[in-house]
Amino acid sequence: MKAAKYIVEFIGAFFLVLTVGMCVIDPGGAGNMAPLAIGSALMVMVYAGGHVSGGHYNPAVTLAVTLRGKCDAVDAAPYVIAQVVAAALAAAVVGFLKVGENFQPLVVDVMPAMLAEFLFTFALCYVVLHTATAKSNAGNSFYGLAIGFTVLIGAYSVGSISGGAFNPAVAVGLGVMGLLKWSDIWIHLAGEAAGAIAAAVAFKMVVRDQS
Amino acid sequence: MKAAKYIVEFIGAFFLVLTVGMCVIDPGGAGNMAPLAIGSALMVMVYAGGHVSGGHYNPAVTLAVTLRGKCDAVDAAPYVIAQVVAAALAAAVVGFLKVGENFQPLVVDVMPAMLAEFLFTFALCYVVLHTATAKSNAGNSFYGLAIGFTVLIGAYSVGSISGGAFNPAVAVGLGVMGLLKWSDIWIHLAGEAAGAIAAAVAFKMVVRDQS
Amino acid sequence: MKAAKYIVEFIGAFFLVLTVGMCVIDPGGAGNMAPLAIGSALMVMVYAGGHVSGGHYNPAVTLAVTLRGKCDAVDAAPYVIAQVVAAALAAAVVGFLKVGENFQPLVVDVMPAMLAEFLFTFALCYVVLHTATAKSNAGNSFYGLAIGFTVLIGAYSVGSISGGAFNPAVAVGLGVMGLLKWSDIWIHLAGEAAGAIAAAVAFKMVVRDQS
Amino acid sequence: MKAAKYIVEFIGAFFLVLTVGMCVIDPGGAGNMAPLAIGSALMVMVYAGGHVSGGHYNPAVTLAVTLRGKCDAVDAAPYVIAQVVAAALAAAVVGFLKVGENFQPLVVDVMPAMLAEFLFTFALCYVVLHTATAKSNAGNSFYGLAIGFTVLIGAYSVGSISGGAFNPAVAVGLGVMGLLKWSDIWIHLAGEAAGAIAAAVAFKMVVRDQS
Repeated sequence: MKAAKYIVEFIGAFFLVLTVGMCVIDPGGAGNMAPLAIGSALMVMVYAGGHVSGGHYNPAVTLAVTLRGKCDAVDAAPYVIAQVVAAALAAAVVGFLKVGENFQPLVVDVMPAMLAEFLFTFALCYVVLHTATAKSNAGNSFYGLAIGFTVLIGAYSVGSISGGAFNPAVAVGLGVMGLLKWSDIWIHLAGEAAGAIAAAVAFKMVVRDQS
Repeated sequence: MKAAKYIVEFIGAFFLVLTVGMCVIDPGGAGNMAPLAIGSALMVMVYAGGHVSGGHYNPAVTLAVTLRGKCDAVDAAPYVIAQVVAAALAAAVVGFLKVGENFQPLVVDVMPAMLAEFLFTFALCYVVLHTATAKSNAGNSFYGLAIGFTVLIGAYSVGSISGGAFNPAVAVGLGVMGLLKWSDIWIHLAGEAAGAIAAAVAFKMVVRDQS
Repeated sequence: MKAAKYIVEFIGAFFLVLTVGMCVIDPGGAGNMAPLAIGSALMVMVYAGGHVSGGHYNPAVTLAVTLRGKCDAVDAAPYVIAQVVAAALAAAVVGFLKVGENFQPLVVDVMPAMLAEFLFTFALCYVVLHTATAKSNAGNSFYGLAIGFTVLIGAYSVGSISGGAFNPAVAVGLGVMGLLKWSDIWIHLAGEAAGAIAAAVAFKMVVRDQS
Repeated sequence: MKAAKYIVEFIGAFFLVLTVGMCVIDPGGAGNMAPLAIGSALMVMVYAGGHVSGGHYNPAVTLAVTLRGKCDAVDAAPYVIAQVVAAALAAAVVGFLKVGENFQPLVVDVMPAMLAEFLFTFALCYVVLHTATAKSNAGNSFYGLAIGFTVLIGAYSVGSISGGAFNPAVAVGLGVMGLLKWSDIWIHLAGEAAGAIAAAVAFKMVVRDQS
């Protein structure tokens, strides 16, 4: 089926954003374990769908993998559309399941939040490129653990500063859920795009055999 | 031994439900770490018994794997019987070890609870089919981690909404332990069956080589 | 070096018991994360030393593996001696590092504690035999994760009932540290020995090719 | 690119120390999950960069691996420089992101702190040598998990005693951030160097084929 890859990207991004929303909105959320749940959600979806679509679930990862030459340029736009639509749908489901809960959007400072998103989106894309696209790591069983837990470390480290998205689709989901102000979302998109590009550059600098 | 597979299913489901009961009933339980313990219980039993029985420990997984064609139809009924009897026995052991503890059954709303069980049973079966039955993932070492931690993310995400069973045997165990009302168990069974079927359909849509 | 295996068993049991003592004695311990730390300690030492000694660090595991025919009978006694001496030394180090902390030994009821130790020592030895000695799992990378996290689930499930040793060397270490009364240690040894034997029997029942 | 290895060491040490600082400084840190985040940070960077540089990110590991003969002596100095400069830069970034937070440097006793750093630096280097350089473990997928989670167990066990560095670059980072007094850093450096040397000796004693 031609659309198989896009369906897999949709499913993975849906469960990632669903877990984000259900775990960070208290009461009934995951409290201080939310980053473990969110990183694990990415991990399991990368392991499940990686063999079909590459398991991006994140426009920043799609950008980095495209720059690195391991994602067909023609797939990039449908991937991003699938990811963002899935995020919006997941956010709507969270709204239904958490109806009546009160919470405030995160208050973010521009420079710290953009730096935080830049740094851990860089880390995430850098880990993806090395563990899932480097020839010398072919056939490993650790790529999902490494990729998912990079989001875990980012969420524990800077979750209180930027919300810990590291992913434009997640940022959109946070916007739909009201956890992030729409007027702040450019901060995330800019930091995340810069992180993805920097990771692709760093990967090309340090890996010799890029076949 | 012909019954080896059924014994392995019995042992795995027993320890899964034992861990569920011991960890969610406080005091002396695992508090906010219960989902980590429960997901890990499934993980270790999948790694231990997967090479003998496939490591289902869950009638919904048995249904999904049977629909996908990787479980003999003749095994399905004994698998489910072994899983449910093990769950009931584990619940009795929990009753002995936790005697005198007071707790109330979870109060559930039909629609949110059914949706929650549907969504994460879908995720669980989808991850099982991809990581443990897809040809392009043969020989991997990550299937147990991916499968177990899908329950972890479900438990953190919707544990407070549906109890986080994603497994009819666990639902029966929760009923025996008094953590779930018997009058609510149809909600779980319906959501879980639908999730298993949907996962088998999704798998068939997105994976080309289904040998 | 002929004693290499015994040295590796000594080092692994030392760090396991050191982690147990340092993490369960508060303040300055790991609080509710102690089971994660303890399970991880076993995991890392199994991965490090498994290729040399098998990575038992536990007389119950040595018993089960010997019954299964994958540990030379002549090695069993030195293994157990190395494990127990290491546990006592680790307990002494904990005493030095935690000097002045006040805590009480765990109060245990005989039957629940023995059942708890039996059940999870069975689970631990069952997971060891399947993941580290079954021919159809040869070459996997998950054995340490599965083995270590079986202790994690046991500790979260029954830590408050039996202390969660599942290991005679750990039980001795708990005795030396004063976390367990010496008059109660027979409960652990009996439950753990029975669990190890039952796991070897179960393994032989369910695995066809035992070469 | 000749400097590729040094760039990879820089990036890995940077994110390790960034995670340490962001997670241990509350509020907005990771609370009792800081050791999980820190161990995971090391894990993901070992998996990402290990195939390029070996993934040390730690002068004590570089020392142990050099003694074991798996790191060119000519690389040792640039590795350590890259690690320490990265740690200082990460500490500066933490200072920017956590500006205005109040905290006190850890108060340490010389002997317990040195023993704590010795023991877990030994454990860390011992696990690195076995899982990442032993011929009989070639091709495994668990080395990053084992290495990263050794820091997790050390941080939960002795974090309150020594700060839980087990890494001279991290110790320098803690000094720059003000979490450790400069007058105490010799305690860490001495304990860590001794631990690295002891691990190399232990590895040579217990592993037969050291090719």
